[in-house]
Amino acid sequence: MGIVVQKFGGSSISNPELIKNVARRIVQAKEKGSQVVVVVSAMGDTTDELLDLARKVTANPCSREIDMLLTTGEQISIALIAMAINEMGHTAISLTGYQAGITTDNAHTRARILKIDPERIRQELDQDKIVVVAGFQGMTDAGDIATLGRGGSDTTAVALAASLKADLCEIYTDVDGVYTADPRIIPKAMKLRFISYDEMLELASLGALVLQPRAVEFAKNYTVPLSIRSSFNECEGTLVGEVKSVESCEPVSGVAHDLNVAKIGIFDVPDRPGIARNIFYSLASEQINVDMIIQGWVRDDRNDIVFTVTRGDLEKALPVVENIVKEIGASGFVYNDRVAKVSIVGAGMITNPGVAANMFKALAKEGVNIEMISTSEIKVSCIIEEDQAIKAVGALHAEFFE
Amino acid sequence: MGIVVQKFGGSSISNPELIKNVARRIVQAKEKGSQVVVVVSAMGDTTDELLDLARKVTANPCSREIDMLLTTGEQISIALIAMAINEMGHTAISLTGYQAGITTDNAHTRARILKIDPERIRQELDQDKIVVVAGFQGMTDAGDIATLGRGGSDTTAVALAASLKADLCEIYTDVDGVYTADPRIIPKAMKLRFISYDEMLELASLGALVLQPRAVEFAKNYTVPLSIRSSFNECEGTLVGEVKSVESCEPVSGVAHDLNVAKIGIFDVPDRPGIARNIFYSLASEQINVDMIIQGWVRDDRNDIVFTVTRGDLEKALPVVENIVKEIGASGFVYNDRVAKVSIVGAGMITNPGVAANMFKALAKEGVNIEMISTSEIKVSCIIEEDQAIKAVGALHAEFFE
Repeated sequence: MGIVVQKFGGSSISNPELIKNVARRIVQAKEKGSQVVVVVSAMGDTTDELLDLARKVTANPCSREIDMLLTTGEQISIALIAMAINEMGHTAISLTGYQAGITTDNAHTRARILKIDPERIRQELDQDKIVVVAGFQGMTDAGDIATLGRGGSDTTAVALAASLKADLCEIYTDVDGVYTADPRIIPKAMKLRFISYDEMLELASLGALVLQPRAVEFAKNYTVPLSIRSSFNECEGTLVGEVKSVESCEPVSGVAHDLNVAKIGIFDVPDRPGIARNIFYSLASEQINVDMIIQGWVRDDRNDIVFTVTRGDLEKALPVVENIVKEIGASGFVYNDRVAKVSIVGAGMITNPGVAANMFKALAKEGVNIEMISTSEIKVSCIIEEDQAIKAVGALHAEFFE
Repeated sequence: MGIVVQKFGGSSISNPELIKNVARRIVQAKEKGSQVVVVVSAMGDTTDELLDLARKVTANPCSREIDMLLTTGEQISIALIAMAINEMGHTAISLTGYQAGITTDNAHTRARILKIDPERIRQELDQDKIVVVAGFQGMTDAGDIATLGRGGSDTTAVALAASLKADLCEIYTDVDGVYTADPRIIPKAMKLRFISYDEMLELASLGALVLQPRAVEFAKNYTVPLSIRSSFNECEGTLVGEVKSVESCEPVSGVAHDLNVAKIGIFDVPDRPGIARNIFYSLASEQINVDMIIQGWVRDDRNDIVFTVTRGDLEKALPVVENIVKEIGASGFVYNDRVAKVSIVGAGMITNPGVAANMFKALAKEGVNIEMISTSEIKVSCIIEEDQAIKAVGALHAEFFE
């Protein structure tokens, strides 16, 4: 008998009726003969409400206590889901992250899973129970409660699936799969039946919010088959797995866009070894994540460096950049927080020359100016003006899918 | 440096402002030089709100999952209290029942504390931290979360104080001490500066809601000095401790009343050994707590048995009694749920003859009819008509205190 791990997000369980609905989905899987492990997030807006409460008490809550506070959200969910399953005549048992054997490092509010001891889960499954585990949390070696950061429940689900050698990890959410583009913007977007880990990882990182990149990485590393489905309908979702043969892959699987982008350019960076290191080390030590980096040669001995950060990090980044400019003797800097990133992703790109050229052609035809370009083996990303983003996604979807 | 345990109830921390207020009280104690351990309940009506949520999911939640659900209430409190203390420049750390080393039996929703390992608390105190512990909860040997039942936070506080050999356990609540009678009914009621464990135990059991009887019992067994005070003012509260000399005790320390009483009478119970055992064993196996029991001889071979239960248990008790009546061949039964219990309590009663007689005289003078009487070494309780209760308490307070 195989094990299925099912993960339900907060919007799928935001009230008692939806909790009963989710319990029915869980019971269905059990009645089909699987051993079922369920991972849940906090109900609806619980996490935000708890953070509001904390803000009313202090402007600077320490991260250990934030974790103590927030983990109650998932604990409420697991108790209610277990009750709803019991009501349907099956036997469920809820387990906190700690009880489920999840050990994390002690980086509170953004901890990483160090190890999982699935002994207790296995015992309960062997007693024919449905096991309901609190996502997003674990315990440090010192016995403190830590959270994995936003979206961490996806990671919990995938990690448990890996540790239990589950046949499948189903991620239930409010969309019914991965689309060739965001269907709210591109009505012709099609649902993908299959996508590779690498493509999913790129899409997740490039703005498709359906799944946390860390969870995809985990799934890839442990070859956990993922299914992304809706908890609100019975549609077949999108399967995320290993590519059998790159030859048979589509050159482009999807178009992604991300509006949470700001661009910073430093002019006339002196050409000395270690300069780039100085710049990005300073940003990293302020916990600022840099995404794309482009270095463009203008003259023999001077050059410009352009990079992108999230808009939320821009305010933190600017004083750092100002200092760096003085320190290294650059001539100045500019920034723009009204840019967007559009990307195409496809595992078959590597064996299909001309895909990037087709992308640039499609954007040019619509009069979209490309400000930065970044490529990997399976994606091409362009930074463009924000107000051209939707037009650009439409042009790219038409070029590759219509 | 001595250890003080401070316990704050739900009404003392029902919003962020009150949480900050409580944090100030805690910090004051720390700044006076004590090591401080704080025990808190769930904020305001949190527990009832969580139970409502459970009821919307199932009519019959299993008790293990109820405990999983309810313990989040105290966990939210400890995180917020710790944050508020940190905000004031001191260092606090929150601990769940489990982290505080509290092991309980596995009687979910009404568990008992089996042992406490205060090692972690001591470590944190030694690092000059204020330790904030979730009341009402612990963990079973099997690793499941269990609650001590309503009011269990009092028990947590006293048990921690015993285990840490604290100098004092302060119970902060919404009244500022123990009074000679309920001050909402008797405006002349006076606050007691001191009361013995035994008297407090009787008062708590007889309807004075200021403290859980189990907590008092625990305090008595481990000689933990208790102080009952208000979190809303700085008034000195009531100290609960050991009596130094019975000779110096007041004959009467307080008047208590309890309206949560129902009376059941069984007529013509045959006089055979084992009959009383049959009656009360049947009630006990339905989890019905019997309080007063009076057996009144009427004829040589037949007699009546009258006893009291809480009003909430009456509905459960009646069918049990109906069966018993048939089984033992009694002639019938009656019940009355409009009765009340008024009591006087005093450790000096035992050395002051005539106290009970004075009680009966005071009640008679007001025309209060006594239906049942029960006595111990330090109390006399009478069952009377409910609508005479307030008049009776007034008469008794006037007789013994005014």
